[in-house]
Amino acid sequence: MMAVQLISIRTVVTKAARFVPTSGVYPKGFKVGGIHCGVKKDGSSLDLAMLSNTHSEPAVASAVFTKNKFKAAPVQVSSRIVKEKNGQDINSLIINSGNANAVTGAKGIKDAESMISVTDSVLGNKSADSTLVMSTGVIGNLLPIENILNGIPKLSTQLGDSHEHWLACAKAICTTDTFPKLVSKRFSINGTEYTLAGLAKGAGMICPNMATLLGFFVTDAPVTSKALKQILTYSTDRSFNSISVDGDMSTNDTIVAIANGAAGGKLIDNTSESAESFALLQKEITSFAQTLAQLVVRDGEGATKFITIKIKDALTYKDAKIIASSIANSALVKTAMYGKDANWGRILCSIGYADVKSPDSVNPSKTCVSFIPSDGSKKLDLLVDGEPQAVDEVRASEILAFEDLNVEIDLGTGGGQGCEFWTCDFSHEYVTINGDYRS
Amino acid sequence: MMAVQLISIRTVVTKAARFVPTSGVYPKGFKVGGIHCGVKKDGSSLDLAMLSNTHSEPAVASAVFTKNKFKAAPVQVSSRIVKEKNGQDINSLIINSGNANAVTGAKGIKDAESMISVTDSVLGNKSADSTLVMSTGVIGNLLPIENILNGIPKLSTQLGDSHEHWLACAKAICTTDTFPKLVSKRFSINGTEYTLAGLAKGAGMICPNMATLLGFFVTDAPVTSKALKQILTYSTDRSFNSISVDGDMSTNDTIVAIANGAAGGKLIDNTSESAESFALLQKEITSFAQTLAQLVVRDGEGATKFITIKIKDALTYKDAKIIASSIANSALVKTAMYGKDANWGRILCSIGYADVKSPDSVNPSKTCVSFIPSDGSKKLDLLVDGEPQAVDEVRASEILAFEDLNVEIDLGTGGGQGCEFWTCDFSHEYVTINGDYRS
Repeated sequence: MMAVQLISIRTVVTKAARFVPTSGVYPKGFKVGGIHCGVKKDGSSLDLAMLSNTHSEPAVASAVFTKNKFKAAPVQVSSRIVKEKNGQDINSLIINSGNANAVTGAKGIKDAESMISVTDSVLGNKSADSTLVMSTGVIGNLLPIENILNGIPKLSTQLGDSHEHWLACAKAICTTDTFPKLVSKRFSINGTEYTLAGLAKGAGMICPNMATLLGFFVTDAPVTSKALKQILTYSTDRSFNSISVDGDMSTNDTIVAIANGAAGGKLIDNTSESAESFALLQKEITSFAQTLAQLVVRDGEGATKFITIKIKDALTYKDAKIIASSIANSALVKTAMYGKDANWGRILCSIGYADVKSPDSVNPSKTCVSFIPSDGSKKLDLLVDGEPQAVDEVRASEILAFEDLNVEIDLGTGGGQGCEFWTCDFSHEYVTINGDYRS
Repeated sequence: MMAVQLISIRTVVTKAARFVPTSGVYPKGFKVGGIHCGVKKDGSSLDLAMLSNTHSEPAVASAVFTKNKFKAAPVQVSSRIVKEKNGQDINSLIINSGNANAVTGAKGIKDAESMISVTDSVLGNKSADSTLVMSTGVIGNLLPIENILNGIPKLSTQLGDSHEHWLACAKAICTTDTFPKLVSKRFSINGTEYTLAGLAKGAGMICPNMATLLGFFVTDAPVTSKALKQILTYSTDRSFNSISVDGDMSTNDTIVAIANGAAGGKLIDNTSESAESFALLQKEITSFAQTLAQLVVRDGEGATKFITIKIKDALTYKDAKIIASSIANSALVKTAMYGKDANWGRILCSIGYADVKSPDSVNPSKTCVSFIPSDGSKKLDLLVDGEPQAVDEVRASEILAFEDLNVEIDLGTGGGQGCEFWTCDFSHEYVTINGDYRS
């Protein structure tokens, strides 16, 4: 009883302490900041974030957006810009939280465009549409645009590259998040040291297989927009598109990657000539994006568990993703995990209704399900080749008491493909948070 | 405050009183019953149900089963029988609750078959495999088959056609259901009076577009197995496949229809000759199946709201179903309804990510969303042609305080197709029930 209570207190009280860094390494030639400008009603929470490329050369950008048919105004405007400029000469970001500027008609588009033009102006960006815009929050209300447009010049004078500036920026894009999500790291390619830094907001409306939330990351590595686009697609597929909180996909989901080349070195393209450095950069960005995406799951609305679903020996990578996503989105699996219940029947069930096409994708008599304890102790087999195992319930309870749960599914198809997918549990708190979000 | 509390008490306390009939009309030539045989661990709850055709002529049957790849043993055995016998000469049902006989390997199949052979034997059925079997409950445990096989002869001596017998039968198939679901009605075709009676169990693992739960209905109308099959497919699509509780699809879902012709009259076929009586029977069975399916939603695990989603002017019927299902399965919509929050943004969002294929299926600037109050008062428009309306929040709260909520979506595609879909909200109680179902 005591042990359970201790774990629970640790989960609730110290998520921020455990997952928010107290220092960081930040890429050259970028300044960021966050202020309260008057979107959030409490009068003090940060609600406006900005990033500016201060390097002498223009930066390149790539972005992935929600596939929802009701695209918010900032999504419509930013995707137009990335397309029109082919990812070239994009040097700043302006982001507000507290209002999604979604389903706001022609005025919403105008507001998003004015956020861009004012930002371009105060930052002295040389070409038009040098800024991408994002918004997150409640749907269907017009932005308090005066407050935002007054905030932009103010914010532009407060940018910096310290850890505190980055943390303020990360806080300013949060909504129901319980902690800001900020990650940074160094890596080397061909002896040159580069830096990656990024932030995200999540909490609810997180769904796999789409651009799934608001976030951006920047690097001082030199890379072409074409190569960056390819890397972003690959890494998003294995990070932000491999997570799920509640299976809902928002009207605003956007992930942006920006690179300014300020750290020097040879330009990385997607040609065969720079294949090695391209692969290195892709590997670094993918693992970085996974870390950031996993923080979104850690802070899933009401989440008490961080669940890794590992699919092995699927027929195809696509099959592995579909099956992982089906498990990760099952309300019954997620409530069982919340209740620390080793109900593998629900896991199996959700594998069984996954929308895979081939009759060979799932073979009930070859399917294995195990729990992998997060303390490194021996795994617990629940189902081996379709046969239920005598489960030691005490051992199962020990494993399920951990905050981090690992479920391994071996499909035994001989296809040898696999994937990892991250999700959280479904708790009373999720219902409380979402039962009355707007008020 | 007082009013809210009264509504809440009414919902919790009197669902059984409101939805369980105190009398019924039952078809000729069928006897039913339910006993406790020792599957449920409390030692007293009814857990074995039986139906027997006592008419002099053999009955015909049709059935729809889960599409889950992990099909429970009773699903495998019953579907084989329906197929092999082409729906002919099926005269009884044997159903246990408390254990799903799912993922139980060869022994599970053997157990399901022995339930059939013992039932056939004690009821004196003339041909082999005259019985269909169903099971519901926990996955992965072998049935306490001795208890069941000892219970079958005992139950066979206690069958009857009174309301109490039907009610016992309905109770005996329940698991986490809070009330038994039993419906009966009379109708006429060409001057002959017929009767329909049926029952279902639901509560969790209810997902649209599949055979979605355990249930059966029987009639004394004379109909060919071919016509019955066609009618069952049509009516299931518009009833049991148009409901959702949590979007999960079980390994055991089965709906069976049986007709024995005991009330006489002209045989109804699906030829042009009996087109009129076929259409009448299909209409009666569809509305009957809808009533039964709606009771499953009423009793959705933890449900406090009964939500009807009406789609108008979709491009196709299929589109309408996909969009309705997307709304009905959104955790964010369902928690908002629970919280009495007029969050139409979430409804719109779930329309926007519905998996419809044509670019003309959803047009943001033509989409309308309204609440239709269940007291017949004026509807409340939330979105008209894609434009958010100034919502009277007091009025919205009044409407959302009702147990029955009606959401109307007009897609404005010009296609003129539509559908109705029924779902419930997502409550704290759902999480409590499913956080620890097995113990």
